[in-house]
Amino acid sequence: MNNKAAVIAEPGKQELFITREFNASREMVWRAHTEPELYQQWVGPHGMRMTIEEWDFRDGGSYRYTHERDGHKYSFFGVNHEVHSPDRFIGTFEFDGLPERGHVIMGKTTFETLPEGRCRVIHQSVFFSVEDRDGMIASGMERGVNDGYEKLDQLLMSLDLASDK
Amino acid sequence: MNNKAAVIAEPGKQELFITREFNASREMVWRAHTEPELYQQWVGPHGMRMTIEEWDFRDGGSYRYTHERDGHKYSFFGVNHEVHSPDRFIGTFEFDGLPERGHVIMGKTTFETLPEGRCRVIHQSVFFSVEDRDGMIASGMERGVNDGYEKLDQLLMSLDLASDK
Repeated sequence: MNNKAAVIAEPGKQELFITREFNASREMVWRAHTEPELYQQWVGPHGMRMTIEEWDFRDGGSYRYTHERDGHKYSFFGVNHEVHSPDRFIGTFEFDGLPERGHVIMGKTTFETLPEGRCRVIHQSVFFSVEDRDGMIASGMERGVNDGYEKLDQLLMSLDLASDK
Repeated sequence: MNNKAAVIAEPGKQELFITREFNASREMVWRAHTEPELYQQWVGPHGMRMTIEEWDFRDGGSYRYTHERDGHKYSFFGVNHEVHSPDRFIGTFEFDGLPERGHVIMGKTTFETLPEGRCRVIHQSVFFSVEDRDGMIASGMERGVNDGYEKLDQLLMSLDLASDK
């Protein structure tokens, strides 16, 4: 069982893919992505404190959250185009800390059922330019993704233990 | 004054650009894109009847409209990520008549002032795949764009005449 995230970013393209498997059902991993009290427990790099300011997880709903560490704040926001439980959600994403607005990303996150109660999450991001994509990768995205998914593994395990009680 | 739309779609890329100049101020062309009673007078191919079902033109707002001809209906919908008058708007776009959902497009439309009371509109669309983009082009997009912009030329002229009275 390989639970390490695979990041695929072909040179010169304005997209990237992140694939990750989890030892939990698709429904449980969907909940961890879409329920704010679960999402804020795992997303982002280790050591960040996360606050969700807005969370309307349905077609046309907006979201905004902030990571904080050592007094530095990093906010992200966007809008959900499609939320189709528990298969897929599609929406926009922007980091509110760049020198200028407009470097928006469109993401599609797909949840697939695997045998033995496991699942696979496939995320695709498309960018307005190759430079936007390469800048995102250079910002340390992969480390943040892996840190977050490690926390998600722990969260899923604790939810699984809780449901066995 | 070249007012023909230029469509640029480089082979193998998941984006396209449409550039068009207008004999009207940026502010007036912005209004024609963002006020529903103006927008429904020009967008889309000749001979279509357009109905706007939803129109919330601000950050996080949704829209939905339908073109109708000979009893056939073609609906489009999406959500606005950023609306920054009169410079730019960014949002999602989807045609509700495909065999499956999820072929979402992210668009950025920029309004530039030109000398002598004219302006330029630059639209960029990015797609989840090259196939999505090529399918959009094959659907007759360019004709629809040119038809619409011809109607917009007429609308802008009539608004200009009205404002001179």
